[in-house]
Amino acid sequence: MTGIGIIGYGMTKFGEHWDRSLRSLAVEASLEAIKNAGITKSDIQTMYVGNMSGGSFAGQEHLASIVAGSLGLNCPSVRCEAACASGAVTLRSASVAIKSGYDIALVVGVEKMSDLSGGDVASTLMGAADSEWEGFTGLTFAGLYAMIARAHMNKFGTTQEQLAQIAVINHKNAVGNAYAQYPFPIKIEDVLNSAMVADPLTLYDCSPISDGAAAIVLASERIAKKMDPTWLLACEQANDHVALHERSLTEMKSVKLASKVAFSKAGLTQKDIDLAEVHDCFSINEIIGLEDLGFCEKGRGGKFVESGEIEIGGALPVNATGGLKAIGHPVGATGIRQIIDLSRLLKGKAHNKVDGRYGISLNVGGTGATAVTSIVGIENGKV
Amino acid sequence: MTGIGIIGYGMTKFGEHWDRSLRSLAVEASLEAIKNAGITKSDIQTMYVGNMSGGSFAGQEHLASIVAGSLGLNCPSVRCEAACASGAVTLRSASVAIKSGYDIALVVGVEKMSDLSGGDVASTLMGAADSEWEGFTGLTFAGLYAMIARAHMNKFGTTQEQLAQIAVINHKNAVGNAYAQYPFPIKIEDVLNSAMVADPLTLYDCSPISDGAAAIVLASERIAKKMDPTWLLACEQANDHVALHERSLTEMKSVKLASKVAFSKAGLTQKDIDLAEVHDCFSINEIIGLEDLGFCEKGRGGKFVESGEIEIGGALPVNATGGLKAIGHPVGATGIRQIIDLSRLLKGKAHNKVDGRYGISLNVGGTGATAVTSIVGIENGKV
Repeated sequence: MTGIGIIGYGMTKFGEHWDRSLRSLAVEASLEAIKNAGITKSDIQTMYVGNMSGGSFAGQEHLASIVAGSLGLNCPSVRCEAACASGAVTLRSASVAIKSGYDIALVVGVEKMSDLSGGDVASTLMGAADSEWEGFTGLTFAGLYAMIARAHMNKFGTTQEQLAQIAVINHKNAVGNAYAQYPFPIKIEDVLNSAMVADPLTLYDCSPISDGAAAIVLASERIAKKMDPTWLLACEQANDHVALHERSLTEMKSVKLASKVAFSKAGLTQKDIDLAEVHDCFSINEIIGLEDLGFCEKGRGGKFVESGEIEIGGALPVNATGGLKAIGHPVGATGIRQIIDLSRLLKGKAHNKVDGRYGISLNVGGTGATAVTSIVGIENGKV
Repeated sequence: MTGIGIIGYGMTKFGEHWDRSLRSLAVEASLEAIKNAGITKSDIQTMYVGNMSGGSFAGQEHLASIVAGSLGLNCPSVRCEAACASGAVTLRSASVAIKSGYDIALVVGVEKMSDLSGGDVASTLMGAADSEWEGFTGLTFAGLYAMIARAHMNKFGTTQEQLAQIAVINHKNAVGNAYAQYPFPIKIEDVLNSAMVADPLTLYDCSPISDGAAAIVLASERIAKKMDPTWLLACEQANDHVALHERSLTEMKSVKLASKVAFSKAGLTQKDIDLAEVHDCFSINEIIGLEDLGFCEKGRGGKFVESGEIEIGGALPVNATGGLKAIGHPVGATGIRQIIDLSRLLKGKAHNKVDGRYGISLNVGGTGATAVTSIVGIENGKV
């Protein structure tokens, strides 16, 4: 197959931006991406804006027009939402638009989770779960993922130390990342001794509440081949029930379905992949993600983490720039940030160096109801 | 050009559904559309869900997975949002997917505005305006449209009686519509004497708060030509600034841009159009919409309404099934309901009879920041 060109990208620092609005974050990332692509605003033919809960967090829906208007653009602009997978679902929607005939699309994901207009973050985030079956009972996302972690531990012998190791590796990888919210190293004892949020998940097993934006300019092959892009060889989505009681606790069917299509479209297998961005909203999710992407057997994720293979220098560096855990997780931006970091790593432009031709990303919405698997290559197709 | 087939549709009654959830409304409309199309659920390759504020109204984001899961589907499902134009933006997104290669797409728009989980309707709806420049000041949507109405009256001599006439015609057209929230006739005195909401707009100048869902099955030409569809000859979107102070009060640039592309893609002009669905969230918007769609000169909308040409039997029946005013306005569903009603009218399946080959719809988000103009034909292309 032939891919879609990633011809430019830009992002804000992820963190707490008490003096910034949703709009200003989205515009900063968009303008940087446009500049990085070497195009002008008028080259943009269509726009996609990813955001989970601007309405609840900031009193602002209609964000596709807010961003288009602020950029002075009148082209079609569409907001897409899929909880914590909003970023990748938005990128995929733009890739569908390119396949339908557009030449250049701007994609920007943004979330502003501090300085709320009303409500509280934990309740708003429960809009990503099933409000009637899960939110109604008073569950939080940490609670949902704690049940998943406990089930994985009981079924496969996964240990709290293996979960903690995820946080240690991701924090280590973030050191030196100018965009990261928490670019400092931690020790395994720090994780194990940090406050218990929802047993067995401690504070350091959880990704933070963040503000930030990330933007990408996508281009058709016709345009991109004249530039120096990375290539989006696949960007595939699958969906499943939202409520956890209707699914497996220890396996994400959506990830398996999306990945199968992604590998098939890219003409690649797991063996071809050199690096990965795997959604680590909670440490357990990175372990299950690695299993369901097919990088290790079901139940062996904990051992795979322990083996050191996911560290920089290992067979499959994972979250080599810090992951959601240490870079931060402004939910609408994360899925786009993952693709930017794969592009930077493949081009040798990230703060850490990783050799490779192909990177894969997994962005998950809710506890697995939405999954998007993308494959990025340094060349357009298999080489 | 060739179009995309509208091979099935379904909708719930619009109104106050105190005993129904967001999910159950969306599923009812979806299942009816699937049945009406004569397909099975497994034929659906991709899904799009339109919804403005499930997060604020019902504590439920991630609605694309909620609906996909409830239908037992694992295909890609994307929620799109564009305030009161969410429905048509979602339909357009599905049409882009069909152009990219999908054969069958389910599109469902839904909103549940009564029985809220928190907040109030007027504040949540202000998420469709600019929260920093407009919501912050305490403005409501009726207030914004009142300023637009007053400006149109001052500039062009539009009268309160002409505004009221919109409500009278739309209520008359809703009589006998089994899906309508308010299927009863009203007199011009009823409008003029009803409670003043925001001068010059009275209660009957305003569309109601509604619950409801509307769904359409779209198919590629290859599939649709074996069926008995209507044809989506164009579905075009344009965007503009959200805040009213950055735009004209009396003209919607987004409508002019979207309509120009729609007429061009369909190979038609205003003279070819036999009936119209024009977004009447407030009566003034139907007048400005008719002007900016090019059916009368700028400023002559009031006179055009007075002429009787927009009534059934006139040159251009508008909102022949009742409009947002009398059918109701569950914001995520409206843009899809408009296309269903054009299809029903063109096929002679609506409660009112209107002759014609081509219908046009205008769905507006906010006070004109998003516009989608669609053209539906009984045959695939100009005849």
